[in-house]
Amino acid sequence: MESLAIVTSLALMQAVYFALQVGGARQKHGITAPKSSGSDEFERHNRVHQNTMEQLTILLPAMWMFGYFVHPQWAAGIGLVFVFSRVMYRRAYLKDPSTRGRAFGVGFIAQAVLLIGAVVGSVMSWMG
Amino acid sequence: MESLAIVTSLALMQAVYFALQVGGARQKHGITAPKSSGSDEFERHNRVHQNTMEQLTILLPAMWMFGYFVHPQWAAGIGLVFVFSRVMYRRAYLKDPSTRGRAFGVGFIAQAVLLIGAVVGSVMSWMG
Amino acid sequence: MESLAIVTSLALMQAVYFALQVGGARQKHGITAPKSSGSDEFERHNRVHQNTMEQLTILLPAMWMFGYFVHPQWAAGIGLVFVFSRVMYRRAYLKDPSTRGRAFGVGFIAQAVLLIGAVVGSVMSWMG
Repeated sequence: MESLAIVTSLALMQAVYFALQVGGARQKHGITAPKSSGSDEFERHNRVHQNTMEQLTILLPAMWMFGYFVHPQWAAGIGLVFVFSRVMYRRAYLKDPSTRGRAFGVGFIAQAVLLIGAVVGSVMSWMG
Repeated sequence: MESLAIVTSLALMQAVYFALQVGGARQKHGITAPKSSGSDEFERHNRVHQNTMEQLTILLPAMWMFGYFVHPQWAAGIGLVFVFSRVMYRRAYLKDPSTRGRAFGVGFIAQAVLLIGAVVGSVMSWMG
Repeated sequence: MESLAIVTSLALMQAVYFALQVGGARQKHGITAPKSSGSDEFERHNRVHQNTMEQLTILLPAMWMFGYFVHPQWAAGIGLVFVFSRVMYRRAYLKDPSTRGRAFGVGFIAQAVLLIGAVVGSVMSWMG
């Protein structure tokens, strides 16, 4: 349980860091709210953040269900792979968005493994 | 508990499927990142996905709280209605966005029932 | 536990209310789906909602982990501060987006306290 909470906290802190970067890019490029376009660099920061939030909405429930029905330490470890993949994803996206595929793929596989484990584990537990 | 986990997994897999459709529409219409506009069909896929993610952020906690404080199988059943409503919502939205109201409404009612049950159940439990 | 569920329900109902306001502004200004720009007032409502959803994705897991590892009533109380800060944030944003900083800051601090408590509490519990 603790390992899942620690990885969840790390993932949330990473997302907050990405959000602060969006705010910074907003100020740097003078994108006044409610606008959210007008600078390619701002839009990159914004997309990195938005995509990470979308992924987290899937990842966190999947990781906790995998942890409960399959194995908590494995769930936490795979969740950690996701967090690292987002470091790479952000680096690639900010440098050249067309190179983001590989890091995205690593995170996507981590997410898929957790989700498949969650569904298999919960169905097996349900069937007794 | 298992029934809630199974419906949660289904809802998450549906959201991942919608996300993959956005990626497909992005490639098909040549919308290069970080752009997220420029093709009506892409924007429809994108809005279906975004709206579903917003709904999930409400639905999943509401369903689990309803399941804990009111009734787990009813929570899972109402959650399943939501998942089906999103199949219809997507179909309507991609065909003609102006017809999305009915399917949206079904999902919204499912969400509202879960949320009202969660608040009533938790307040009643709190009051002993 | 009940106090956390009640504050979670409040935060979710607030987010649903914000979403309904976006729908209302969409109709009022004739922004037909899938478009999500074209009216400054619509975009303000939309940004208030989107930003609140992003915050909730962080806040809810952080509040529950703080509640589990540190103190449930304190977690719920700080979560309530967040909900109130969003009332102020919305009011400021709709009036003049440039004045949103203070209310955003209050909510951000509530979120940060919950997240720091969650990570410290889970690491201390893990270390035994």
